[in-house]
Amino acid sequence: MLGTILYAPRDVRCEEVPEPKILHPTDAVVRLSASCVCGSDLWPFRGLNDVTSPMAMGHEYCGVVEEVGSAVTTVRPGQFVVGSFCISDNTCPHCRRGFQSSCQQREFMTGAQAPLARVPLADGTLVATRELPPDDLIPSLLATSDVLGTGWYAADAARVQPGSTVAVVGDGAVGLMGVLAAKQIGAGRIIAMSRHNTRQDLALEFGATDIVSERGDAGVDRIKALTDGIGADSVLECVGTKEAMTQAILCARPGAMIGYVGVPHGVELDGQWLFFSQTGMMGGPAPVRRFLPHLIDLVLERKIEPGKVFDLTLPLADVAEGYRAMDERRAIKTLLRV
Amino acid sequence: MLGTILYAPRDVRCEEVPEPKILHPTDAVVRLSASCVCGSDLWPFRGLNDVTSPMAMGHEYCGVVEEVGSAVTTVRPGQFVVGSFCISDNTCPHCRRGFQSSCQQREFMTGAQAPLARVPLADGTLVATRELPPDDLIPSLLATSDVLGTGWYAADAARVQPGSTVAVVGDGAVGLMGVLAAKQIGAGRIIAMSRHNTRQDLALEFGATDIVSERGDAGVDRIKALTDGIGADSVLECVGTKEAMTQAILCARPGAMIGYVGVPHGVELDGQWLFFSQTGMMGGPAPVRRFLPHLIDLVLERKIEPGKVFDLTLPLADVAEGYRAMDERRAIKTLLRV
Repeated sequence: MLGTILYAPRDVRCEEVPEPKILHPTDAVVRLSASCVCGSDLWPFRGLNDVTSPMAMGHEYCGVVEEVGSAVTTVRPGQFVVGSFCISDNTCPHCRRGFQSSCQQREFMTGAQAPLARVPLADGTLVATRELPPDDLIPSLLATSDVLGTGWYAADAARVQPGSTVAVVGDGAVGLMGVLAAKQIGAGRIIAMSRHNTRQDLALEFGATDIVSERGDAGVDRIKALTDGIGADSVLECVGTKEAMTQAILCARPGAMIGYVGVPHGVELDGQWLFFSQTGMMGGPAPVRRFLPHLIDLVLERKIEPGKVFDLTLPLADVAEGYRAMDERRAIKTLLRV
Repeated sequence: MLGTILYAPRDVRCEEVPEPKILHPTDAVVRLSASCVCGSDLWPFRGLNDVTSPMAMGHEYCGVVEEVGSAVTTVRPGQFVVGSFCISDNTCPHCRRGFQSSCQQREFMTGAQAPLARVPLADGTLVATRELPPDDLIPSLLATSDVLGTGWYAADAARVQPGSTVAVVGDGAVGLMGVLAAKQIGAGRIIAMSRHNTRQDLALEFGATDIVSERGDAGVDRIKALTDGIGADSVLECVGTKEAMTQAILCARPGAMIGYVGVPHGVELDGQWLFFSQTGMMGGPAPVRRFLPHLIDLVLERKIEPGKVFDLTLPLADVAEGYRAMDERRAIKTLLRV
């Protein structure tokens, strides 16, 4: 079959790879309905994470179970499933407390930019739907696997409440999903920071009430002006750079929480500054599994359409172009037909 | 009158100072029932904060109102009052959200190691009791002003819940008050990290269920062992050093919150490490005013006795010895008769 391998920065290839097999009794093999490129795939693509050996890319997935290992009891061949990018047993103490992304058996999914993928710990990781979903819902169901789940976690970690004033730093796919999540949770005001017309439009469609196109100090000043000088109750930091984190902290009112889901690169926080800003922080890889049943229901009931975040669809063979388009910000997020 | 002035590191003097007067219509002057030395007074005493000009020391206070400015409406001469070490108007947006320690008009109290003190923004800062309290409750009422309020905020910021497993880093007066707060909130297990017998005894008296005397990696290992390898649900960081903060993060389970109330000195947090530890953080100067009515009630109803944290009582004239005893850890906290 075809699969996606990153050999070195900017060298991502679609090439013949072996089909995945059941390796452990707790595995499943899933025939993917679609796949996609994640913003986090751009870190190694850009050389900002080391690429020490060829990497099988892709960690967002949904599809139909092809085969399960002998110990798998909750999903069976023929069922449609969505799984988190974080593999979890969903039974360990961390999972039971809702932090499946720190599962004691955690693995990170790989190899899902392909037609078939092996999913370890299938019982703990996969959520099956009652019926096969209609094709037009596939992009939105795929989105729940990571990008929506991560935006949702940002809102959850930032403790967005009904009526909250929320600022979203980052207009990538995760930031836009953060807007959607804040809207669903009932935020009263959602300020999206974005300089790009198409992303601004999508943010507004997902529920943003205000757009701030300024960055840095000017962006902070705008948010302060929009909030009567108070700052936001919750800030979603969906980038991971020092600039984005600094902006997030400066936009927050004292006592606010920042939910940060962009993997920090070059971010150092000065303890005393954070102390006197009185800003709370909660982040990390998103425990998507916690939210997945709810998010799948919202999609199946057509209450949300996170799949709109895909503005470029390519055949798997053109995966390299999918990376480049996102790297150059020509595309928000690339869907791959597998 | 006598007052306490810090001239330089280790040079703290009790000497004749002018009596405080009403300077603004919103001020009150309070005749203090007692005063005390705070752990944070030791930062400049030890030269870890700059002392650029003589500092009027003391910010914990309770006593009887002597005089009020013309704009003060909620307290009157003759009433017994307790106030927070953070001066606040209690009406600004930050105060209304419970973060009076980041009040838009915030000042930090000074000059309270003396018989009389001026309290700015009296209406927003002071809480009056219905009657004059009995003398034996004065130490506990004094404790609500900062040390108990700060320990309580640590527990609140760390989101201690009924049944939680709580670790307390730091066996200074604030850490011990954190133990008391966690107990009152209903924590199921309270692990106090302490190497000193007298402090261990007091921690147990305040509600600690376990004592860990190891520090560093060994301390973290002990806490992991006590929690079936999971880590604590909530960690109270009551020191402010890099070692204490690192220990707090390593003791926390994924998804836990750290409430940090020791003013960070030399603490830098690596964003990516914090991200993957999945530890939440909330800290800052304690919004004691938020908790003060409840804490005063608990003391007046004799449900808690935070005043036990004072293990040395000296006349104000001997204030320098009070500082030295705390600096050398001969005393947990010094009460001053004024």
